[in-house]
Amino acid sequence: MSVNRQFLLQARPEGPIKHSDFKLFEGALPEINEGEVLVQVLLVALEPAMKGWMEARVDYVAPMQIGDVMRGRGLGRVIESDNTAFPEGTLVMGGFGWQEYAASRGVDLTILPEGITPEAAMNVLGITGLTAYFGMMDIGKPEAGETVLVSGAAGATGSVAGQLAHLSGARVVGIAGGRVKCDWLVDDLGFAGAIDYKAGELAEQLKALAPDGVNVFFDNVGGDILDLGLENIADRARVVLCGGISRYNETGPLAGPKNYFNLIYRRARMEGFIVIDYAKRFPEASSYLVDHLRSGELKHHETVLDGFEQLPQALMDLFTGGNIGKQLVRVAD
Amino acid sequence: MSVNRQFLLQARPEGPIKHSDFKLFEGALPEINEGEVLVQVLLVALEPAMKGWMEARVDYVAPMQIGDVMRGRGLGRVIESDNTAFPEGTLVMGGFGWQEYAASRGVDLTILPEGITPEAAMNVLGITGLTAYFGMMDIGKPEAGETVLVSGAAGATGSVAGQLAHLSGARVVGIAGGRVKCDWLVDDLGFAGAIDYKAGELAEQLKALAPDGVNVFFDNVGGDILDLGLENIADRARVVLCGGISRYNETGPLAGPKNYFNLIYRRARMEGFIVIDYAKRFPEASSYLVDHLRSGELKHHETVLDGFEQLPQALMDLFTGGNIGKQLVRVAD
Repeated sequence: MSVNRQFLLQARPEGPIKHSDFKLFEGALPEINEGEVLVQVLLVALEPAMKGWMEARVDYVAPMQIGDVMRGRGLGRVIESDNTAFPEGTLVMGGFGWQEYAASRGVDLTILPEGITPEAAMNVLGITGLTAYFGMMDIGKPEAGETVLVSGAAGATGSVAGQLAHLSGARVVGIAGGRVKCDWLVDDLGFAGAIDYKAGELAEQLKALAPDGVNVFFDNVGGDILDLGLENIADRARVVLCGGISRYNETGPLAGPKNYFNLIYRRARMEGFIVIDYAKRFPEASSYLVDHLRSGELKHHETVLDGFEQLPQALMDLFTGGNIGKQLVRVAD
Repeated sequence: MSVNRQFLLQARPEGPIKHSDFKLFEGALPEINEGEVLVQVLLVALEPAMKGWMEARVDYVAPMQIGDVMRGRGLGRVIESDNTAFPEGTLVMGGFGWQEYAASRGVDLTILPEGITPEAAMNVLGITGLTAYFGMMDIGKPEAGETVLVSGAAGATGSVAGQLAHLSGARVVGIAGGRVKCDWLVDDLGFAGAIDYKAGELAEQLKALAPDGVNVFFDNVGGDILDLGLENIADRARVVLCGGISRYNETGPLAGPKNYFNLIYRRARMEGFIVIDYAKRFPEASSYLVDHLRSGELKHHETVLDGFEQLPQALMDLFTGGNIGKQLVRVAD
């Protein structure tokens, strides 16, 4: 234990992310200063948004520079401490990046809540869970009896967003790829229905599952799926623009939603958001999510790849639908 | 005076509206029943939305049937009355349709407010003025110091919407076709700037006039103009979808706004509305508009064609940008 393996950003992705966009680097183990802790990283969480950081195409966070340690949140164990708030052995979550060890002054660390597994915390209490919370509760605002459509429903954000709508008393319909994911949504997560986008006849499936239209459409996908949703909105619908996984691997100009004009006919709204804007309210969201995890009302599933060197592959898998629920890498036990 | 000329819907438009979509018909002068009034129509107001009614492609109003008198609002004089609320000689506004005379029980009639000219009333107090009011004040909600972009700014809706934003203390930038319209916006209506979309370099012009981005974008046009606006929205912008004049003459599938994803990066909202949903609040809007017409703070301009037979042409002119301000036809003096 004198080497700290890290993945550095070696090249900005052009098209899909490639292994050669990263460089595996053997850095020195960080030394801690006064008030700091040394954290051994156990789990790293993967999110599609990372591609935007690598490409520096978004401006809501500082752009990553070539040579930077790849940015990302994880969970680790304090193995050396000069900070009484985080004694040795404490399990903490924070923005450690893609490396095996990180030093921290503790200001951005959160202690793993009691009764929550590390995997559940990285999933539901991580950035995708918070994204689901604010997108669904603050922008979608589903009401009891309404029909809520979630695309990318078996992903980390979608699966939490759909369950939050279900907990609000809405009828939730998910769109996901493949029978396994769809069964999970309906059998385990309480979705009223699920549409397998790989099975074709999406329009007919949606009409059957949402005959009175969609009141809230939480979109993680964009492209044809966004158009399908827009075609089926009900009066005064809220279309929550959370992401666009179908877009992130494209390089040229992309088509917009040709059915946007339905927002007029249906007096509806389409709204985007960035979860970090809600940072002051993260405690409120975490408290809600922790309560519902503990009560068992919020289900969760993680797709975990083992081994630090799996990090690039785990990120790539997000763009091909390889994961169910949250994509994690177990860096150490 | 025994004949009542009417324009009937003869064919649903395919592509641009044609003269042959209408049939000039000589009907009988209506006879009034107990409690009714007979109105001689003096002015008829034209709106782009009429094309959607003719095509029966919208569902927020009952579709027009072939053979119906063309639907539309106008202003007329009561020439025979069995209703004490509307004595002979009263100037009234109502949905008389494209005909020279109409009988009415009075329930849908509004008396021309004192101190307002018939033309100003048909313009600012008509459906386009109300549309401007609710779209700008209820959905756009401009605040003092914000930058508001209005497309189709020299049209009936846009010119009122822009002035309402100006009265709210916002900096208003308009997009219109040609120097004459642009000068009118800046010199007469208090716009801070105007972009002539026929002069090219729209993106550069907009960047210069709205360097900090657009807080409210009131869009009447769609297409490339909507994309331009979306590219330039500021954080938390409100994009008001009022109409899409660039779309109404197209028949095939239309492209959507390719910059919609900027709604996420800018945490912004795009929202449609239908003015008739606000019917209960029309008195509130009319009262505001009348006050500001009387005070001279709200300017107005009408493009008036003379003669009943000009009605089809007047409607067609709306789609080629022929009008400045409100398009009206003077049916009688």
